[in-house]
Amino acid sequence: MPPERTPPSKLQDFAFHHDLRVRWAEVDPQGIVFNPNYFVYADVGVGEYLRAIGLPYPTGLSEYGTDIFAAAASADFRAPAHYDDELHIGVRVAHLGRTSLRLAIGVFRDEACLVDIALTYVNATIEGRRPAPLPEPFVARVLAFERTAPTRA
Amino acid sequence: MPPERTPPSKLQDFAFHHDLRVRWAEVDPQGIVFNPNYFVYADVGVGEYLRAIGLPYPTGLSEYGTDIFAAAASADFRAPAHYDDELHIGVRVAHLGRTSLRLAIGVFRDEACLVDIALTYVNATIEGRRPAPLPEPFVARVLAFERTAPTRA
Amino acid sequence: MPPERTPPSKLQDFAFHHDLRVRWAEVDPQGIVFNPNYFVYADVGVGEYLRAIGLPYPTGLSEYGTDIFAAAASADFRAPAHYDDELHIGVRVAHLGRTSLRLAIGVFRDEACLVDIALTYVNATIEGRRPAPLPEPFVARVLAFERTAPTRA
Amino acid sequence: MPPERTPPSKLQDFAFHHDLRVRWAEVDPQGIVFNPNYFVYADVGVGEYLRAIGLPYPTGLSEYGTDIFAAAASADFRAPAHYDDELHIGVRVAHLGRTSLRLAIGVFRDEACLVDIALTYVNATIEGRRPAPLPEPFVARVLAFERTAPTRA
Repeated sequence: MPPERTPPSKLQDFAFHHDLRVRWAEVDPQGIVFNPNYFVYADVGVGEYLRAIGLPYPTGLSEYGTDIFAAAASADFRAPAHYDDELHIGVRVAHLGRTSLRLAIGVFRDEACLVDIALTYVNATIEGRRPAPLPEPFVARVLAFERTAPTRA
Repeated sequence: MPPERTPPSKLQDFAFHHDLRVRWAEVDPQGIVFNPNYFVYADVGVGEYLRAIGLPYPTGLSEYGTDIFAAAASADFRAPAHYDDELHIGVRVAHLGRTSLRLAIGVFRDEACLVDIALTYVNATIEGRRPAPLPEPFVARVLAFERTAPTRA
Repeated sequence: MPPERTPPSKLQDFAFHHDLRVRWAEVDPQGIVFNPNYFVYADVGVGEYLRAIGLPYPTGLSEYGTDIFAAAASADFRAPAHYDDELHIGVRVAHLGRTSLRLAIGVFRDEACLVDIALTYVNATIEGRRPAPLPEPFVARVLAFERTAPTRA
Repeated sequence: MPPERTPPSKLQDFAFHHDLRVRWAEVDPQGIVFNPNYFVYADVGVGEYLRAIGLPYPTGLSEYGTDIFAAAASADFRAPAHYDDELHIGVRVAHLGRTSLRLAIGVFRDEACLVDIALTYVNATIEGRRPAPLPEPFVARVLAFERTAPTRA
C-alpha cells in the first residue's frame, strides 16, 4: 500500500454528464460527502444517461422483458466534495458483454475528478431473474451515442 | 464478461460481526435493498468493529491526532436482501499498511453471503489531512483481535 | 412565536420501545442528526411495534387486503441527538379511528425526550387504495397491548 | 378522524420554487416516495430559497454569528410522488418571529399539490446555541422577496 490506483478520468472522456448539487443530507460531520452517497450520484447519473440515449429507466428495458441488476461496484475516492458543490456526473458505457455491461462514472467539480466509479450490471429477465442478452436496440443506441467505443465481450 | 468474481466469503472468516435489520427506507421499488445502502451497512459494521477492539470511532483515533478517510471501496453483489431481513455484517482487517488499511466486510443472511465489500482507508492528520502512520496501539489491538492475521505492507 | 409546543412525552408513557444507535450516515455537518432521519427512526419503531403486537409489517395487514399509508406527520425537535447515541424509540397508538390511526413516537436518550413525533396513517385497500376499516384483529391487539387506551373515533 | 386537514396550497402561492426529480433511492417498495424524503426535498428547497434571496446557507447567516435549527416540522401527505417525477418545491416564509421563522413548503407535480410541509426554525448563536434575533438584513430580504407578506410576531 498505498492502494494501487488507476489514473483519474477526465471530463472530456464522457460524451454525457448530468449536473447536480450536493445536499445537506449527504454531508457528514467531517464536512464532506458521506461516501455511499457517491454511489447514489452514480445511480442518478446512469438514470439520466439512459434517458439521454432514449431508453428511460425502467421502461426502456422492461419493454424487452428485462431489467438490470447491479453485480459489482467500485470507487476510487480522490478528493472530497462539500455541501453545495456543483458536481458533474460523467457517465459512459465502458464495456458491453452479452448479458452484462460496465459503466464508468466520474464525479467532477469543475475539471477536477473527485471520484471514479465502475458499476457492473447484469441484464436479467424480470420473471425469474435469469441472465438475458442485452436488448439489441439498447446496444445499438449505446454504440451510436458513445464517443469512445465500449470494449466488447 | 460475466465479471470476474472472487469466491464469496464465509461467516466464520470473521472474528467479529454486527447484526442489523433491513429498514423500509433502504428497500427500493424492485423490493430489494438499494445497493449504496450496503456501503452504509459496512460503515455501521466498521464502527462497531472499532468499538469491539476498544477504540470507538472517532475518539479512538483522534486521541492520536489522526482520522481515517475512505480511499477506495468495492462490492460484489451476490444475492439481494429484502425488507426486514436480519443481516450479519462480518468485519475484519484484511491488510495493514503503514498509513492505510483495508477492511473486508461480508453481508450475510443466515450462512449465505449476499455481498462482499472491501474498504480502503487512509490514516491522516486531522489538521491538514496528510497521511500519517497508523497509531501503534491501533495496530496492536487489531493484531490481537483478528483470528486470521492481516497481510502487512 | 416561539412556536406553541406540547410538553415532552416521557419514556414511561410508552408500553413499547425499540432501541437503536445513531449512524454516521445520519449526522450532518452541524454534528447532529439531520432532522428527516427522526422520521426514519419513527418508521423503524412503528415496524417493531407491529411485530411486538404480532402483526409484522406488511403481512400482518396485507392478509386482510389492506395496507397503511402515511397521511400526516409532525415533529417537535427538543434537543439534538449525536453520532453513536443510543436512542430509545417509544411507540404507542394514540388514536384509533375507523379507517385511520395516529401513532405517537418519542425519541429518548436515557430519560430525556429529544423529539416527539405524531404519525397519522390511513388504512386502505391494496387494490385501488380506497380507505378501509382497520382490521378488527389489529384493533383488538392494539387495545390489549397498550398501557394507556387510545382515544377512539 | 379522518385527520383535520388544511386545504392544499397552490403553486401560485409561492414566489419561489425549485425543481427536482425523484431519485430511485427515494422510492420504497410501495412504489412511492418514502415519506421522510419529502422533508429532504423541503430542506433542499429552503437552501435554494436562501440562495435566491441572496443569503446562501450557511454563510448568509453565519456572518451574523447565527445559524438556524429546526424546532418543529409537519406535513400533510395528499398524494404520492413516483420514481422520475419532476417536482416543483415551492418555498415561502409564512411567519417571521423575533428569533424564529416558519416556512411553508409545497411539493407539486404539475399543478397538483402532493405534500404541504411547515418547518419552524429557531435562530441561535453558533457559540452556545442561544436564541438570537433574526438578522435585520435577513428580515429585509424576505420582506422584499415575498409576494404575500409573512405574518409577524
